[in-house]
Amino acid sequence: MPATSFTIGLVQMRMTADPAQNLATAERLVREAARDGATVVCLPELFRSQYFCQTEDHSRFDLAEPVPGPTTEALGAIAKEKGIVVVAPVFEKRAPGVYHNSAAILDADGSIAGLYRKMHIPDDPLYLEKFYFAPGDTGFRAFDTRHARIGALICWDQWFPEGARLTALAGATVLFYPTAIGWHPSEKARHGDAQASAWQTVQRAHAIANGVYVAACNRVGLEVGAGEGIEFWGGSFVADPFGVVIAEASRDREEVLLARCDLGWLEKVRRHWPFFRDRRVDAYGQIAQRWSDR
Amino acid sequence: MPATSFTIGLVQMRMTADPAQNLATAERLVREAARDGATVVCLPELFRSQYFCQTEDHSRFDLAEPVPGPTTEALGAIAKEKGIVVVAPVFEKRAPGVYHNSAAILDADGSIAGLYRKMHIPDDPLYLEKFYFAPGDTGFRAFDTRHARIGALICWDQWFPEGARLTALAGATVLFYPTAIGWHPSEKARHGDAQASAWQTVQRAHAIANGVYVAACNRVGLEVGAGEGIEFWGGSFVADPFGVVIAEASRDREEVLLARCDLGWLEKVRRHWPFFRDRRVDAYGQIAQRWSDR
Repeated sequence: MPATSFTIGLVQMRMTADPAQNLATAERLVREAARDGATVVCLPELFRSQYFCQTEDHSRFDLAEPVPGPTTEALGAIAKEKGIVVVAPVFEKRAPGVYHNSAAILDADGSIAGLYRKMHIPDDPLYLEKFYFAPGDTGFRAFDTRHARIGALICWDQWFPEGARLTALAGATVLFYPTAIGWHPSEKARHGDAQASAWQTVQRAHAIANGVYVAACNRVGLEVGAGEGIEFWGGSFVADPFGVVIAEASRDREEVLLARCDLGWLEKVRRHWPFFRDRRVDAYGQIAQRWSDR
Repeated sequence: MPATSFTIGLVQMRMTADPAQNLATAERLVREAARDGATVVCLPELFRSQYFCQTEDHSRFDLAEPVPGPTTEALGAIAKEKGIVVVAPVFEKRAPGVYHNSAAILDADGSIAGLYRKMHIPDDPLYLEKFYFAPGDTGFRAFDTRHARIGALICWDQWFPEGARLTALAGATVLFYPTAIGWHPSEKARHGDAQASAWQTVQRAHAIANGVYVAACNRVGLEVGAGEGIEFWGGSFVADPFGVVIAEASRDREEVLLARCDLGWLEKVRRHWPFFRDRRVDAYGQIAQRWSDR
């Protein structure tokens, strides 16, 4: 029986060029989160490496690994040792030529409670993910764990209300968004604030529209994989079901962000804002169309 | 051929107990908006009356009128005279016992370009709309007018990402939300800021997720229809397709809010944030379900 309230921990990390070192950092910070009371801990998207999608480089597929594999085994051992749930992003090698941007949900006994494969794949300058990742085929899911029923979505998914809605409809109480998002340095002065505000706003809206907690876990640091690189903007945060930001990390420091989730509050918000009662499910079918000209 | 940029005007109003006086105020302020350059003007939800849904009173159905009817004729005459488009909310009597909370889109020649009937009907203390209004059957639409292709949704629709998405998929460049929302006075100190923030946030997110302008037009003033009444919080605003609030009205004054909409900017934002390209329309079918346990 999951607890009616629990603490989540978001590990905001700075990545080095060494995947082993990144795993060591992740392990240290996950332990720190557990020590400080977190029972559900999330790492950033593709935390084992720097963000390699700035270029199209076939050799980078060497970074991928299977699930289960080394990352889920290492973090599963900590999950079991500490009795915590871990949302563990993995560059997943599913088969030769079939790679995904995934997140494994590791339960508190170290087992894999489920796997989410990023459904929405971006392709923008310095975010060339369509080269690396096949679109996910897991759909939008919620996973029962010892401490909570949670959902995981990944980065670009943040911008799509459908993903949040479907994960909430599946019963998730927290939507975790492992993330790798930042500024093109030359755009930061002009558009930086508006971009970061939009990023937080669209996710706060998922919390509001769905009466769920939303937890976004980003990386920090400048990584120059091509051109001027990307300055990852940190700002990991947790919004409550009312859309209030109850915890927010810095823009540039590695840190563990803790926030308390209260299912009593979630229940109360949904009673007072009964959106699920009033959804016009009879009139939503066209959402499964690309555009409304057919 | 609609213009590539145009000015919208939101008439933030304070309502009296006299429907004739409210219409006169609306006419005066619509003319003022037109004088100041607006070519698409929106009025607040149910602007002909105070917000009667605070109680369940059969006599209030006397306030309803057909479409076309007195309100669309009066405002249509101004639309034609000024060559502007008007989004005109109407308490619509469709047939005996069939009433809707509607918005008529009046084109610049005074004709009715289309009708939207509120799809999501609330029922909360002092917002007893399920008593008065049958759920809309228009679906979520966009309307071609002389000056722009626009969508209209109404108040409670604001909280549903599906309505915004479907109206955007229909090709709307601006989503107008005539509104009547306010604080329960006794909740204002504790929850007021969070409520108003959530209201604006969820709509800014519609702008971001859909690459559209969003224009919310609310009323102001304390109206005591029951209990302590409702303090309507004004705050009418326009968000651009980046989610930036480009115009915002006061919390307590009657005023005309103007904002410029630029379809070149809309195009640019959608090129840089290509969400419509990446929607997983193959995986959204469950959105047409109430909950995911079946």
